[in-house]
This record gives sequence, structure tokens and C-alpha cells, in this order.
Amino acid sequence: MKIIYSEDHRCHFPQGELSGGELVTPFERPSRVEFVLARLKMRGFSDISGPGAYDASAVARIHDADYIEFLQTAYAEWVAAGFRGEVIANAWPARRMQWRRPDFIDGKAGYYALAGETAITAGTWQAVQSSAAVALTAQKLVQGSRDAAFALCRPPGHHAPRDMYGGYCFLNNAAIAAQAFLDRGAQRIAILDVDFHHGNGTQDIFYDRGDVLFLSLHGEPKQAYPYFLGYEDERGSGEGEGFNVNYALPRGTEYAQWSAALENACGRIEAYGPDALIISLGVDTFKKDPISFFKLESEDFTRYGARIAALKRPTLFVMEGGYAIDEIGINTVNVLEGFLG
Amino acid sequence: MKIIYSEDHRCHFPQGELSGGELVTPFERPSRVEFVLARLKMRGFSDISGPGAYDASAVARIHDADYIEFLQTAYAEWVAAGFRGEVIANAWPARRMQWRRPDFIDGKAGYYALAGETAITAGTWQAVQSSAAVALTAQKLVQGSRDAAFALCRPPGHHAPRDMYGGYCFLNNAAIAAQAFLDRGAQRIAILDVDFHHGNGTQDIFYDRGDVLFLSLHGEPKQAYPYFLGYEDERGSGEGEGFNVNYALPRGTEYAQWSAALENACGRIEAYGPDALIISLGVDTFKKDPISFFKLESEDFTRYGARIAALKRPTLFVMEGGYAIDEIGINTVNVLEGFLG
Repeated sequence: MKIIYSEDHRCHFPQGELSGGELVTPFERPSRVEFVLARLKMRGFSDISGPGAYDASAVARIHDADYIEFLQTAYAEWVAAGFRGEVIANAWPARRMQWRRPDFIDGKAGYYALAGETAITAGTWQAVQSSAAVALTAQKLVQGSRDAAFALCRPPGHHAPRDMYGGYCFLNNAAIAAQAFLDRGAQRIAILDVDFHHGNGTQDIFYDRGDVLFLSLHGEPKQAYPYFLGYEDERGSGEGEGFNVNYALPRGTEYAQWSAALENACGRIEAYGPDALIISLGVDTFKKDPISFFKLESEDFTRYGARIAALKRPTLFVMEGGYAIDEIGINTVNVLEGFLG
Repeated sequence: MKIIYSEDHRCHFPQGELSGGELVTPFERPSRVEFVLARLKMRGFSDISGPGAYDASAVARIHDADYIEFLQTAYAEWVAAGFRGEVIANAWPARRMQWRRPDFIDGKAGYYALAGETAITAGTWQAVQSSAAVALTAQKLVQGSRDAAFALCRPPGHHAPRDMYGGYCFLNNAAIAAQAFLDRGAQRIAILDVDFHHGNGTQDIFYDRGDVLFLSLHGEPKQAYPYFLGYEDERGSGEGEGFNVNYALPRGTEYAQWSAALENACGRIEAYGPDALIISLGVDTFKKDPISFFKLESEDFTRYGARIAALKRPTLFVMEGGYAIDEIGINTVNVLEGFLG
């Protein structure tokens, strides 16, 4: 399996993540992918290469131009306004307020943010660009050869809709890759999001479209981040009606319950018959994850990798979350090894 | 002029306010009202007394029951969840997301918050209760005697709609007082909000009602907090059509421009003929305010106090913002002295 990876992810490492009323060292930190990379090498994955150039036009197929510009300029505007910390959203268009975009950076950050834990730093855009390039480079490999590939993206992407950042995400790497498949000739793409957290960004992007089937297994929104999307009655709208499938699972979910939801999702994917499959691969379903509440064991990741392989589709794995640093490499590589059989 | 004040405000003093990407000592701090109190005494205001008991039924006329319960239980739920800081909202119902209330406290805080700078502490509810009691006690004095009174409230209230906190506000003291006037026999109330920041909470509460005329002079929302409400085309709806009036003023506004807006507002108040007038009194229009951008001088506060007096209405002053601590007492008392003539 080909692996795409860029060291530029290190350019994004905020000093602070707002968590539990404190600024703490971010759970989403560079060592995450370094542990995955080390484990890949240890297990003999040697076909690891860098991404091609950043493809702005492919990204613009998913994300709004004003939002992309914001990501590029936010930190400089923030510093120019005299703020001393990193960019953290502080006021937002709350319920019943206006959706007009402010001009001042403090308001603009709140307009484009869906959460406060995600800071923008001087190096964020560089890392975000490279992460999208990693996903697009891996996508091309899958579409060209029908082999599977693993886009070892960082920052992750699945929380980002077309015009918002949050949940450690800025550009939606999986959605950008899905659109690239379609733009290069595919008719139908399925995205299976196995991250613990609902892929609200991906859902929002494709909610009214029938050419992308989105399925997400995640912690129920009344209990789990991102809280405000991911209910099971969100089934898509218009041409997308029925093409959005949420499996909202309770605190303490173990593999038996989780894999039953996966089996249902696999049935829907088989019925849909996608030209390619994208896995939004978060391993924060692991029992020791510090900010999640499912109870998967490390061997369960191998098992579900094998189940995904049985779908027999050209498959692109895109790295999303996972914060149990010590085991993130083991669990991630277990999925790939299970897939390879 | 009678002054109502409670020392219980000191129970609310968060360790941190999220500002510019850092946790800093809150701009909205206990010394604010202590400086006002000291200046009042220095200038001979001696009729200062404490509030009556907290009137839950009067508060329930404005705020939703589930929201009031949240304010009472949030800190305990937060601590029980294992969070170590104060309650700071971290994820919210962003654009196009669901407005369903989560059950877990981290999500619930985001549901009920409109901004992240405002922390809830162990003592917050005690202070919030006393602040509402201060406003209601002063309201009774005005309605009973038709004298003016000053409710030296802290925390302030004008950013709080019926079901959200933020901008240092939890219960909307001015709105609670307005409803009390109506419930005790008044037909029409005018609320004039002279705080630098738009009184988004008060606007939202009365937006579809014709029995409360709301007028706010504030920094234009594209540049100033709370950013997502306060445009001049927000004029009320239904029976409230025309009874919401926003004066959105640019960076650097001096008294000449500010007082022209005030004059227009006074014309509308005179035309409306309210039974009583409530002034949401923030003095952050002052030129040295650290988080605002108008340029009023200390003597301008005296001048506009006199203009308000010329409306010749039973008048209740309710303390809102003002963060230039050294001059907050001077500027606040200047308004009252200008009013008294």
C-alpha cells in the first residue's frame, strides 16, 4: 500500500487548546502522525512518499474562496490587531443572530469557526496546504491504479464544512479527495467515517448531493463533540435524500455494537456500488482515547480493516483523529494490515 | 437619587477571560463597581441601600426555565465531568448546525453561550441573582415614587437574551426591570442602551413586541462585539416592527456624532411617550476604554445625562459595561449628576 506523507504538518502546533476551561497542550499534536509513521516503518510499509504540489483549484471545488482567503490571512490580521495569543474564536453567530461576516478579525474568526479548541498559528496554512496535497496525491494513486493508498494527513479534515474550521480541521481532505474522484471520471463515491467524532463537515458539504454517499459511526451528539450535528434523522436533502447515514452510538460502545453499525453501513455501500471508497480514518474509537468514549480494543482495528477490504473497492484511507498517542500507530496500522489481509 | 447595590457581585470573578487567544484577568471585574461606589460616596450620593430578595417569578417572565436551571447547575456539572478550569464554552451550534440542546455539560455550555470570554464560576449564580435583585429593587422605587434610581448591577445584563449568556452577562437586568414595569401596570417602556456594545440580548427579548421600545447606540457590528447583531436594518418584527432602533456608529466616533444619534433616539422616545425609561448605562464609550472604540470625554457623560433628564420620564439607570477602571466612577457618576442637573 502506498503511503503519502509530508513533514510540513509540523508547521501547525498551537501552544494552546481551549479544553475544560483551560489552555492546554493540544491533543491534536505533531507526535500523532510521527507515531503512525514510525509504526508503519516498523511493520514494513516502505512505499512512503511526499505529496505533489498544492492544487488550489481542487480545493476550491469544495471550499469557499472567502474562507480559503481567511485561512491564509487570519494570523497576520490577528497579530496586526494587537492580539498576543494565537487565533481563537471568541464570539460567534449564536442562535437567532445574524450570519453576516464581520470585517474585524476577532469577529471574522468567530464567523468562520465552529469551535474554540482549534487555534490558528503562523504556520497553520502551510500545514493545511500540505495536508490537502497529501490527500489529493493519494487520491490520484487510487484512481490511477485501483490500489489502496493511505493519506497520512495532518491536520485532519472531517469537521470542516465548506466555510468553517474547528475540531482541529481546516480543509476537508476527504471531501476534497471525493470531489477529485468525481472530477476525474467517477460517478459515485462513498465516504465511510469511522472516527469517533461525527464528520459534520463532510456531511454538510455533500448533504444535498446523491453522488457522494456519506456514512458516519460516532458518539451520539447529545453526549459527544461536535454536539450540534450527527443525529440519525439527518438523512440528506433534495437529491441527497437518503445519502447521508449517521450511526449515533452511546457512551461505552464496544466492538460488538460498533461492528453491527459498520455491517449496516457496509450493506449500504454494497447497494450503492461506489467507484471508490474513502475511509475517514480516526482511531479515537480506541478504549484509551482521552477525549472519546467508545471501547474498541487494538485487535478490533484489524478486524474492521478486513471488513472494509471485503467491500472490494478502490480504497483511499485519509487520516483523521486519534489522541491516545502511545497506541495511535498500532491502531492505525492495524486497520491497514487488516485491510491488506 | 436612590442607589441600589449588593456586595454579592464579588462572588463572580473568573480567573480567566478568553481574549486575544489568551486567558487574561477579566476586563469585567469587581473593582469596576467598587470604583463607581467610591465615586458616588465622594460626590455625596448617600441614599445607597441593598436589594430585596431575589424574585424568581419576575426573572422567569424574561428567561427560559431550562436556561435558568443551567446557570444554577453548570459549574457543578462541569466539575463533576472532571474539567479543571472554569466553565468556558468551546463548541457551539455554528451556522447550519442543529439547535438541539446536548446533555453533556461541555456541549450544553456551548448551546447556552453566545461567546467564549464569559466564564461561569462557583460563585457566579449568587452574583447573578443579586444583580437581578438590585435591578428589580430599583425598578420598584422608580415605579412607586416616579423618582429616578440607579441599579448598580454587576454582572451586567444587556447581552443576555432569554436563553444565552455571554459578553459578561447572564440575566438581562434591564429587560427584567422593563417587564416588571409592565407587569405592575405600565403600558409602554423605552429602553435606551448607551453602552458601547450593542444590547443584543435586550433586542432579541423584545424584538416582536410593541410595548417595549428598544434603542441602542453602539459600535457597528462589522467592527465591534457582539458582531452578529446590531445592524440598523434590524427594526423589529410583527407587533414589534419599528420598535427596535439601532444606531451603528463607526470607529472613532466622537460626541458630536454620538449625540446626534442620541438626539434622534430622544425624538423617538418622546414620540413613543413611555411610562418609564430604562437606561442601559455602559460607560465604555469613553475614549480610554480598553476594548471599545468611541471617543467620548468625561464631560460628555454629564452632557448626555442632562439630555436624558430633559425627556422628563421616570428613569431607571441600570449599570452595564465600562472597562476603563480609573475613570469608570467619574464617567458613571457624571451621567447621574448631569441627569440631576
